[in-house]
Amino acid sequence: MTIEAALRVGVIALVAVVLRWLAARAITRGVAGMRRREIGSKRVDARASAVASVFSNLTTWTVVVIAVLLALGEVDVQLAPLLAGAGVAGVAIGFGAQSLVRDVLAGIFVLIEDQYGVGDTVDLGEATGEVESVGLRITTVRDIDGTLWYVRNGEIARVGNMSQDYAVARIEVPVALKADLHEAENVALEAAREAIKDEAIAAKVIGEPQMLGVQTMSSDQVTLRLTLKTKPNAQWSVQRRLRREILRAYDENGIELPYPQLRASAGAE
Amino acid sequence: MTIEAALRVGVIALVAVVLRWLAARAITRGVAGMRRREIGSKRVDARASAVASVFSNLTTWTVVVIAVLLALGEVDVQLAPLLAGAGVAGVAIGFGAQSLVRDVLAGIFVLIEDQYGVGDTVDLGEATGEVESVGLRITTVRDIDGTLWYVRNGEIARVGNMSQDYAVARIEVPVALKADLHEAENVALEAAREAIKDEAIAAKVIGEPQMLGVQTMSSDQVTLRLTLKTKPNAQWSVQRRLRREILRAYDENGIELPYPQLRASAGAE
Amino acid sequence: MTIEAALRVGVIALVAVVLRWLAARAITRGVAGMRRREIGSKRVDARASAVASVFSNLTTWTVVVIAVLLALGEVDVQLAPLLAGAGVAGVAIGFGAQSLVRDVLAGIFVLIEDQYGVGDTVDLGEATGEVESVGLRITTVRDIDGTLWYVRNGEIARVGNMSQDYAVARIEVPVALKADLHEAENVALEAAREAIKDEAIAAKVIGEPQMLGVQTMSSDQVTLRLTLKTKPNAQWSVQRRLRREILRAYDENGIELPYPQLRASAGAE
Amino acid sequence: MTIEAALRVGVIALVAVVLRWLAARAITRGVAGMRRREIGSKRVDARASAVASVFSNLTTWTVVVIAVLLALGEVDVQLAPLLAGAGVAGVAIGFGAQSLVRDVLAGIFVLIEDQYGVGDTVDLGEATGEVESVGLRITTVRDIDGTLWYVRNGEIARVGNMSQDYAVARIEVPVALKADLHEAENVALEAAREAIKDEAIAAKVIGEPQMLGVQTMSSDQVTLRLTLKTKPNAQWSVQRRLRREILRAYDENGIELPYPQLRASAGAE
Amino acid sequence: MTIEAALRVGVIALVAVVLRWLAARAITRGVAGMRRREIGSKRVDARASAVASVFSNLTTWTVVVIAVLLALGEVDVQLAPLLAGAGVAGVAIGFGAQSLVRDVLAGIFVLIEDQYGVGDTVDLGEATGEVESVGLRITTVRDIDGTLWYVRNGEIARVGNMSQDYAVARIEVPVALKADLHEAENVALEAAREAIKDEAIAAKVIGEPQMLGVQTMSSDQVTLRLTLKTKPNAQWSVQRRLRREILRAYDENGIELPYPQLRASAGAE
Amino acid sequence: MTIEAALRVGVIALVAVVLRWLAARAITRGVAGMRRREIGSKRVDARASAVASVFSNLTTWTVVVIAVLLALGEVDVQLAPLLAGAGVAGVAIGFGAQSLVRDVLAGIFVLIEDQYGVGDTVDLGEATGEVESVGLRITTVRDIDGTLWYVRNGEIARVGNMSQDYAVARIEVPVALKADLHEAENVALEAAREAIKDEAIAAKVIGEPQMLGVQTMSSDQVTLRLTLKTKPNAQWSVQRRLRREILRAYDENGIELPYPQLRASAGAE
Amino acid sequence: MTIEAALRVGVIALVAVVLRWLAARAITRGVAGMRRREIGSKRVDARASAVASVFSNLTTWTVVVIAVLLALGEVDVQLAPLLAGAGVAGVAIGFGAQSLVRDVLAGIFVLIEDQYGVGDTVDLGEATGEVESVGLRITTVRDIDGTLWYVRNGEIARVGNMSQDYAVARIEVPVALKADLHEAENVALEAAREAIKDEAIAAKVIGEPQMLGVQTMSSDQVTLRLTLKTKPNAQWSVQRRLRREILRAYDENGIELPYPQLRASAGAE
Repeated sequence: MTIEAALRVGVIALVAVVLRWLAARAITRGVAGMRRREIGSKRVDARASAVASVFSNLTTWTVVVIAVLLALGEVDVQLAPLLAGAGVAGVAIGFGAQSLVRDVLAGIFVLIEDQYGVGDTVDLGEATGEVESVGLRITTVRDIDGTLWYVRNGEIARVGNMSQDYAVARIEVPVALKADLHEAENVALEAAREAIKDEAIAAKVIGEPQMLGVQTMSSDQVTLRLTLKTKPNAQWSVQRRLRREILRAYDENGIELPYPQLRASAGAE
Repeated sequence: MTIEAALRVGVIALVAVVLRWLAARAITRGVAGMRRREIGSKRVDARASAVASVFSNLTTWTVVVIAVLLALGEVDVQLAPLLAGAGVAGVAIGFGAQSLVRDVLAGIFVLIEDQYGVGDTVDLGEATGEVESVGLRITTVRDIDGTLWYVRNGEIARVGNMSQDYAVARIEVPVALKADLHEAENVALEAAREAIKDEAIAAKVIGEPQMLGVQTMSSDQVTLRLTLKTKPNAQWSVQRRLRREILRAYDENGIELPYPQLRASAGAE
Repeated sequence: MTIEAALRVGVIALVAVVLRWLAARAITRGVAGMRRREIGSKRVDARASAVASVFSNLTTWTVVVIAVLLALGEVDVQLAPLLAGAGVAGVAIGFGAQSLVRDVLAGIFVLIEDQYGVGDTVDLGEATGEVESVGLRITTVRDIDGTLWYVRNGEIARVGNMSQDYAVARIEVPVALKADLHEAENVALEAAREAIKDEAIAAKVIGEPQMLGVQTMSSDQVTLRLTLKTKPNAQWSVQRRLRREILRAYDENGIELPYPQLRASAGAE
Repeated sequence: MTIEAALRVGVIALVAVVLRWLAARAITRGVAGMRRREIGSKRVDARASAVASVFSNLTTWTVVVIAVLLALGEVDVQLAPLLAGAGVAGVAIGFGAQSLVRDVLAGIFVLIEDQYGVGDTVDLGEATGEVESVGLRITTVRDIDGTLWYVRNGEIARVGNMSQDYAVARIEVPVALKADLHEAENVALEAAREAIKDEAIAAKVIGEPQMLGVQTMSSDQVTLRLTLKTKPNAQWSVQRRLRREILRAYDENGIELPYPQLRASAGAE
Repeated sequence: MTIEAALRVGVIALVAVVLRWLAARAITRGVAGMRRREIGSKRVDARASAVASVFSNLTTWTVVVIAVLLALGEVDVQLAPLLAGAGVAGVAIGFGAQSLVRDVLAGIFVLIEDQYGVGDTVDLGEATGEVESVGLRITTVRDIDGTLWYVRNGEIARVGNMSQDYAVARIEVPVALKADLHEAENVALEAAREAIKDEAIAAKVIGEPQMLGVQTMSSDQVTLRLTLKTKPNAQWSVQRRLRREILRAYDENGIELPYPQLRASAGAE
Repeated sequence: MTIEAALRVGVIALVAVVLRWLAARAITRGVAGMRRREIGSKRVDARASAVASVFSNLTTWTVVVIAVLLALGEVDVQLAPLLAGAGVAGVAIGFGAQSLVRDVLAGIFVLIEDQYGVGDTVDLGEATGEVESVGLRITTVRDIDGTLWYVRNGEIARVGNMSQDYAVARIEVPVALKADLHEAENVALEAAREAIKDEAIAAKVIGEPQMLGVQTMSSDQVTLRLTLKTKPNAQWSVQRRLRREILRAYDENGIELPYPQLRASAGAE
Repeated sequence: MTIEAALRVGVIALVAVVLRWLAARAITRGVAGMRRREIGSKRVDARASAVASVFSNLTTWTVVVIAVLLALGEVDVQLAPLLAGAGVAGVAIGFGAQSLVRDVLAGIFVLIEDQYGVGDTVDLGEATGEVESVGLRITTVRDIDGTLWYVRNGEIARVGNMSQDYAVARIEVPVALKADLHEAENVALEAAREAIKDEAIAAKVIGEPQMLGVQTMSSDQVTLRLTLKTKPNAQWSVQRRLRREILRAYDENGIELPYPQLRASAGAE
């Protein structure tokens, strides 16, 4: 062990101490900032100390292990066995962290490709609702029951954005197999045309309602499909209104619904 | 540490600084371009600064880490421990990024093999609808409700393209077990032949309707299958029309549907 | 084998013995602490000795193997074959431990991003209920039946937090296809408005009830959707109350439910 | 840096430029050929330039990165850190490309083992229909609705080929629990024997129909199984014909179907 | 080949022989112990010799292969090709053994975190029942049918422990849509209060029964939810008793159940 | 670059050319053999040239790449960067080919352990039917509809062999809840005993029929289980015969089936 | 190339030839043994030659490849490119073989932990039935239909052993919602007590029957749960007997079953 080696070991130790101190300071500041921003929240203290402790341990151990390895290398100890040992931890950490990388990569592409933004109504597979925030690792979505969903970006296989450019209100009307389908189609279409003249709805509609025709034919009923182009996020209210108006029109025009006799006996009540 | 080593370290530092500056400039320009292209969009600013910050951090850290490692190598520090540390990050990033590579590879083959193009109606498994754009990483599809789907190319196990060369309108007609099947087949076939004489449909049809026969036989009904070759994307409207016409013909010719007594009692209303 | 090599081997042996002794002491203390904290628990002894034995074996073997390899390296034995052998174990351990790393990484992000805290009602996919503790590796959740769930953080693909900021009480009311939907909507809305005047409920409600309209339309019934914004964790009791009040109002106002004849014949009892 | 090293660097640069130029030319030609072959297709231009740009970028970057690394190696720069960086990309690319290799390997075995060929009707799991083309990476299949399916060969776990050597038309006839099963078996068998005397069917049949007997026995019906060996691809039309003839024979011979009373009340219409 | 190399080879051979002998002896003793402990079991002999043979082969081969490699290394044979060959086996073994490591790691955490102990009733996903033993690799659980389940700890994604601190008896009572819900709630609650005065139940109950209200509202029935806090493992017997008492109270108080007419016609028997 | 290096490069080139030529010849012969064996098949030419082209490309590229690397190594070019590049392809190929290895390994064990042979009826999970061939990579199975299934051996998680040693004909008889179960059991058992006296069946039966008793008890029916040991592959025909005979016996002895009133009203027809 | 190198190459060749010859002889003997043991089996010849050919090829190639690599290493050819090529195969083989290792490891633990033995009735997930053999790689199980299942040990996530120590006969009795539950419980319990006095059953029973009470409460029925501890493998016959006796007792005591009116109208037949 030459003097130069001793010197190098000293330098390594010094750098390690400085790095450790810098990291500790950064963590202290970060945690203090976290505390300041979230004053009044009852669980911020527990979280802050937990986070601080985790990062403090992490940086200390990383710095110490690498410094010791470098120092041993300088005093001519064969490092291969030790590195192999460290490699075991490395494999575990590397593989364990791959989903973190995948999440962040996916998050970057959400931003670049502008797949969705705050306020859009999206279907992420894991959750469906209105986007509350788009982060690098996580997207938060508020669903129809007010539940806030934290979805990791890497877990999202495909995104369905219901607020892009336009939407379509689609209505599937059940009709009896024996009903006069031609009349049933016309009555539904006419009811839809009447409905969108209402002020409350008119502003949300882009095009004209279209009666596509017999969509399904099962052993006990037929369904007719009617579509109407609407502004984004307006499809649901338009849909609901059209459903009500078509049912009313069917009742008025005597179009048979799939189970007429149920209503018949009820009518005899 | 010889003079040559010092020189080399200096060169490494210089190259690193230049690379960092070049990258920063490219990012600034790219973001500015993004801003220009999307003027008027309310969320472009937030996205632009987020994207810029991500890439800026990424390039800075990559350049710094590699430069420091190269410099340490020049001053005869044993790099193995440090490289092992970097390798942990490398494994995580490499594995995390593999799905990105898979997406792009899949996207290249979509282009080369011309699996689908803008305007085709496709079933990608994750989403079904009309293709709006074909990208290297992502394909966007607009479904029947107007929802825009972003599907990663690598997640697509198989593609069903419904707009290639021709299509088939397939109709499965439910009939009572006791019905005269021979007549039921003929009535349906005749109804289909009549229907495609209509101008609105005729132009969409390629061949003649074919009555294949009894497709399924369950405990309460039989279904007949009838097919008709059509132009691409016209299969659905032809299908709907044929369904309506066949049901009308059955009603006129007294072919029994699976639940005749339901209609019978309703008819007594 | 030079004298220096012999010296080095001696140092390695000494360090190994010391490390082994330090680890043994730490384990003994930890186990003693575990025993003290959990006095009175009948299964603490068995657990304590099992844990102690596992860790004792683990540290002994790790120290011995690495020390022997280092010593052999000093006496110029080719280590490659031995390291390859050790590598087999390393691969197995590294891969086996990756889920541990993933769990801890996920736990760190739960803390940093404050996805949920003790007392929140969450849906973790694996279990739904009230959070009892948030750990680095595991989150415990108490469900509605009192079952305590231990969920590994890394297994949680997405979190649904039902106690964040506000919640929505959503009620889906079934109505007969033939009912007067306009009246059905108004009666339900009015019933909801009445209900939230009750003291027991009023404090839990944030906004006004909203009647969205016809949500689904199947072959035998229609469902109406009504929503009401509430304070977090109050959505369920508000929901239950509204359901009761709407059913009562329907009964009083003669709105037809999907199967009226069932009730009719029952009424004749 | 000796003169020899400088020379070597020069050679490396030269080779890189030549390789880049050769690749660029090959790409240009390939794209031009693609354009020629597909004249008249409206989307060939967009595809051609996209493909050209992708390959051009790919080859340029590969050549540049390897050339720079080789040159640095010649001027005695430590390559380990750079290689580690490149290794990260390598891992990502290698893993991302493994499914490509798997697809091609699977495709080679489809060819060697002659699992299916153009015109066969196959069940690939992902899609069922007639094979339109067999490629190294992808098989295309046209299904019954005219949809063209692109299936990656590596995704096919098992292949069901319905056009190999012969096929079996299998008919499951539903019968009432109380029916005389012996007679029901004989009537069905006799009906099948009669049916295959018809010219349209006779040529498609290989053997004699076989009545296997009571296949299932549920709480409300019994099903009889009858099989008949046919030529490949003829099983479906034979099946449909037999179904019709057996139902007719049952009606004529008064064999009870599972829900006789439904038909009885309908008959009273 | 120098004399020192020859000496080293001799030492290696000697160490290998000794190690092999020690391992053989340990195996013999272990097997003998297994035989002694399980005297009377008819299958202990077959198992003992199978286990002995497996371990004997395993240690022999490991020792021989490593010794031969070390010896070849001493006589200056290039080991790289041989090590690459051994590496293939190493990869297979390392990956094949990773689930073993995962199981043991999971087992250690079960002990440390005290997720469950012998006698607890747990839901491990793979099996539900009473814990019979907690091992490092495997947990055994006895289910309700007396089946003994061996569950590998690493396969357990989440644990539901039903015997921790307290439990909740939850009862979902079906009621007709038209029933007077307010009375139905009160009758059920009163019945529950009466029931827990019974000595057999009283000792198992911790709190008061709570009527939460209308939990679900479908097209043909309403369900009321009632909960009651109980001691661990007593929830099921309390539940069953409450169900019986509530049904009795409903019958006595004339609360309508979902299908009243069924009972009505039956009552006319 | 010494003369020896030049010589070595020459030798490498020579060996490469010879290997390439040998491979080309082997491929040509193999393809010619394939053509000869399959004369008359219309698709053999296309397959033969496709296979030849694939293998020809594969061997050429492999030989060229390795030869160039070896030659470069001889002229002292640093191979590390090139090897890293080749390693990327290697990873992709190695991982992509692992399922091939798994298939072959599984196939070897099928042979060694004699899990099934040609003519056995097996359930491979992916397909069920009669084994037509057992290959190293693939097993082909002909199912009941004549479809030929190609199943990769590595995809088979478990094999169910229905043709080993003996089989059991199991019959589950549905009976009304109110039926006299003791008599129902005896009648079924007696019917089975009578049935196996028939010559056509007797030779296929090994033991005596056993009435196990009430297997399931649902809200509307009871099922009785009866078993009978038969020769391999005879279980299905025995089963079908027994089903018919038991139903006949029930009819003759007046044992009630689950829905007696259905048959009652039908009998009134 | 020195003389020593030439000598070494010669030794390598010699060793390779000897190893190859030894392996060939071992294979020939093994196959001959296989033929002797299985005389009379018609498929032993095909299997024997297939197995011999596979192993013969395998050993020849392994020996040749390693020998050539060692020889090339002796004559100073750079082995890195060749080893990289071999590494590709190594990765494929190593990964492909990992499931083999996992199977054997799992098999060892089945033996050590005595999870099940020949004759036990087990649920392995993949198959349920009686264990016929326990191997290192595979367990064979004979199911209730006589099918013999080959299950790879590594595919078994959890084992349910139904023949360990004792078993529980569990009976779920369906009862009408309106039935007198207290009486229904007592009648069932009494019936069970009577039943186990029968000699045929008494010997199989360990404890007393226990009536747990109302297990489920749906909209149209209630189920009562009754349990009885039995000897291993006797639970099924006890269960079936108890079911019959309880149904008989209910009929005699007039306890209402879920659909009483069905039986009522049938009784009027």
